[in-house]
Amino acid sequence: MARWQPNAGERLERAALELFGERGYDATAVTEIAARAGLTKSTFFRHYADKREVLFGGDDRLAEQFGAAIRQAPPDASPLACLGAALRACEATFPMDRHDLAPLRYAVIAAHPELHERQLLKRARLAAIVTEALRERGVDDTTARLAAQMGILAFSTAASRWSTVDNRRPFADIAAEVLDELRTRATELGAGTAG
Amino acid sequence: MARWQPNAGERLERAALELFGERGYDATAVTEIAARAGLTKSTFFRHYADKREVLFGGDDRLAEQFGAAIRQAPPDASPLACLGAALRACEATFPMDRHDLAPLRYAVIAAHPELHERQLLKRARLAAIVTEALRERGVDDTTARLAAQMGILAFSTAASRWSTVDNRRPFADIAAEVLDELRTRATELGAGTAG
Repeated sequence: MARWQPNAGERLERAALELFGERGYDATAVTEIAARAGLTKSTFFRHYADKREVLFGGDDRLAEQFGAAIRQAPPDASPLACLGAALRACEATFPMDRHDLAPLRYAVIAAHPELHERQLLKRARLAAIVTEALRERGVDDTTARLAAQMGILAFSTAASRWSTVDNRRPFADIAAEVLDELRTRATELGAGTAG
Repeated sequence: MARWQPNAGERLERAALELFGERGYDATAVTEIAARAGLTKSTFFRHYADKREVLFGGDDRLAEQFGAAIRQAPPDASPLACLGAALRACEATFPMDRHDLAPLRYAVIAAHPELHERQLLKRARLAAIVTEALRERGVDDTTARLAAQMGILAFSTAASRWSTVDNRRPFADIAAEVLDELRTRATELGAGTAG
């Protein structure tokens, strides 16, 4: 088999998610993923460190994109505008031509407590990165933490809506809409009495 | 040794936190904790399932208190008023007569990645409980999620401020102050442009 394979990463991802769904995550071996994709085990390991990375491999790049977008936002951009920039920067993580894989990924993670914990921890780390990037812009600590939580909430809500089977809208559109919804809710919460 | 020991739980907690700080969490055995407290290993296991429970044992009760306070708030209470009630309900988790243990606990968890992850997961679960309790009151999903994140942020910020060595103020006072601060920040964030 030739060393170079077109779209090997994507073929492996698709094969892995199908197998996780059919047999369960724990019962699926890397050899089986490679075989289903028509590739070798060593090709798998050139693309992913292990089968868990098929699910979470994009998260580190995502965290970098989030941080970079906030640091590169115009000096006068509000915290909310920075969140908007961060959400637009992660558009590439949600490719329409692989949209059919999204519900599979969601189902695998939801069915497996350890993977679900891994996802919660990844989001907590993303919140820490957003908080730090906002603080570096001179945003006060409390605002930075609250804005980071709004950003993560916007991201996870938008990702969840984008991933529904019937969705055809690009991630950036959904994310902008969700962020605006959160902005309205923040105003309403702020206006409530703390009684 | 008599089966009943006055304040055994508190003595074991103090001994454990001291030893975790002196020798590290991993290097401390339950036998040593019991010996330092002047108690037996079996007394330890009547109070805690394992040494990790010394650090996190109060969290399940805390989650129950949070949920109950939100469910029992007056029907017309705003989401923010519900958060205020939840924060007041967990006052007993922060006893002034054991305040000196708080910085020890923080240091142990901060120094140990696995314990730190455990704490992040406990907070994510607390957020899920608050979200669900607010939804049960008829609060819309987006507001419930955002309010829950504000509540967890208020809780963790207040817990951190309460736990500083020099603090002498009760938790409820600090928590009310932090929640009010978050309310102001939420209003400001809501007023910002999403650019």
